[in-house]
Amino acid sequence: MSDAPCRVAVIGAGVIGISWTALFLANGLRVRVSDPRPDLAAAVTSGIASAAPALRSLGYPEPDTALLEFEADTERAVRDADVVQENGPERLEFKQAVFTALGTAGKPDALLCSSSSGLAVTDMVANLPDSIASRALVAHPFNPPHLIPLVELVPGQRTAASTVERAERFFQNLGKKPVVVRKETPQYIVNRLQQALFQAAVALVAEEVGTVADIDEAVTNSIGIRWSTAGPFASFDLAGGSGGLAHFLEGAGAAMGVNAQTTELLTAQAEKFFHTTSYEQRVEVRDRRQVAVLRALAAEEVAEK
Amino acid sequence: MSDAPCRVAVIGAGVIGISWTALFLANGLRVRVSDPRPDLAAAVTSGIASAAPALRSLGYPEPDTALLEFEADTERAVRDADVVQENGPERLEFKQAVFTALGTAGKPDALLCSSSSGLAVTDMVANLPDSIASRALVAHPFNPPHLIPLVELVPGQRTAASTVERAERFFQNLGKKPVVVRKETPQYIVNRLQQALFQAAVALVAEEVGTVADIDEAVTNSIGIRWSTAGPFASFDLAGGSGGLAHFLEGAGAAMGVNAQTTELLTAQAEKFFHTTSYEQRVEVRDRRQVAVLRALAAEEVAEK
Repeated sequence: MSDAPCRVAVIGAGVIGISWTALFLANGLRVRVSDPRPDLAAAVTSGIASAAPALRSLGYPEPDTALLEFEADTERAVRDADVVQENGPERLEFKQAVFTALGTAGKPDALLCSSSSGLAVTDMVANLPDSIASRALVAHPFNPPHLIPLVELVPGQRTAASTVERAERFFQNLGKKPVVVRKETPQYIVNRLQQALFQAAVALVAEEVGTVADIDEAVTNSIGIRWSTAGPFASFDLAGGSGGLAHFLEGAGAAMGVNAQTTELLTAQAEKFFHTTSYEQRVEVRDRRQVAVLRALAAEEVAEK
Repeated sequence: MSDAPCRVAVIGAGVIGISWTALFLANGLRVRVSDPRPDLAAAVTSGIASAAPALRSLGYPEPDTALLEFEADTERAVRDADVVQENGPERLEFKQAVFTALGTAGKPDALLCSSSSGLAVTDMVANLPDSIASRALVAHPFNPPHLIPLVELVPGQRTAASTVERAERFFQNLGKKPVVVRKETPQYIVNRLQQALFQAAVALVAEEVGTVADIDEAVTNSIGIRWSTAGPFASFDLAGGSGGLAHFLEGAGAAMGVNAQTTELLTAQAEKFFHTTSYEQRVEVRDRRQVAVLRALAAEEVAEK
């Protein structure tokens, strides 16, 4: 297989599968979409049309529907695909059946990706031979996949290192930002973070500290902007001033339940990954990015009026 | 006092106090800064110079240092201030001493704001008469205050409704986005949310699921962008499709520990606050805003190279 696979099979044409399809087409890939739904062609075509303006604004060419095919049957859909992106229901038995079909009916070197948002690929391919398991991994997008850059790549116990590298290249070439999750764990990274914050948000509403509108307004005008430009660790590293995360955790760590051993681990990583430029330079970069986001949102707000 | 107070006293010239000072000056207010630090004038002047480019990019006029005065003594600093913004150490005894000084030495109708990030103003003014307590509230900014729009306004048990309204107008006139917290609670809204996510992030690093760099990269490329344009409730409301948050919680609520009563509360609020336009229109708005943020960040990334 070349580095630029020309044929993708999308299994499951719900919101996620259709969004992937639009992205693949906008990248000039041939796409065969498979789903038993009777309105398959209409749903996919309409979904692609909805996604097109945003894709155009991001600089992608128009999704070319001449590259699009439909095939209700999964095994026939994957027969000549270089890459398969599976978007079925979030049930292990379903995923196991799909991977059996993908592995046996597909090309022997096809890359097999699941859009699962929480299951382990190790379990999905538990009953399949290495020749299939080595090519399978989770490639979890965020809704909508054609816009949100992150793809969490979660290899299983038998996924080959070369498979992870292929997947990284594949999604990078689409303009996505893949992050490889280093240990197979339920919910992976972002859904676990998102759930922790959401549960705290629900508690605030239940306690009548704020309404859902208050809380959303507070988030979009603070940590949303902050975290679109610097993650939670880099943000608290900057909050610690020139002393960085070490200084921040001296003050706030105990209240957050961060023990001495973990503080050492976090501090060492913050120094290694973040302190490659001076504190002043990092503040300047953060400020410039935040200004860019604030200006974009202000302009959009004006345009909406 | 008129709606456009002309004189602000900033008590405490650390990172937060200096950033507030830059914002107040850029809005044409007269500012007197008070702090016992020996390098007060130099630190404030240099901090304002650092904040100026970002303020300029956001459309504010140049901070006018002719409007700036210094006064080491707190009581003399506040004597003719219409608004006081206090940014002292996060210790209750300190806050109590400051509010006593602000209340007794200041103008009898001055608005008394604390930048506290977690304490209750009720406790800060516990020993003071209503004439002072009624004018006091927390006005908690996010670092850096001259950039991040949110100001959490947290009234205490004796804060007058008119004080809350005055504070809302004051911060709105500065271009900020105040949100009134409806119940005095430790950490208010955003720090509680932020801490919940941060603790989950720390656990992921401790479990070696990802490094601090992996996790930051994952957040900035997913929920950061998402939450800069739509909060956690509006986002999950859209994730539920045309069925909204009710449909989303049918699937995910139990796993997130959201019970039936809370589901009803959240669903009713989501319908009231979010469902004022059609699902398709809300998706379109979200997509346009996300595209605006993505384009701004991509342009900034190019500029940084």
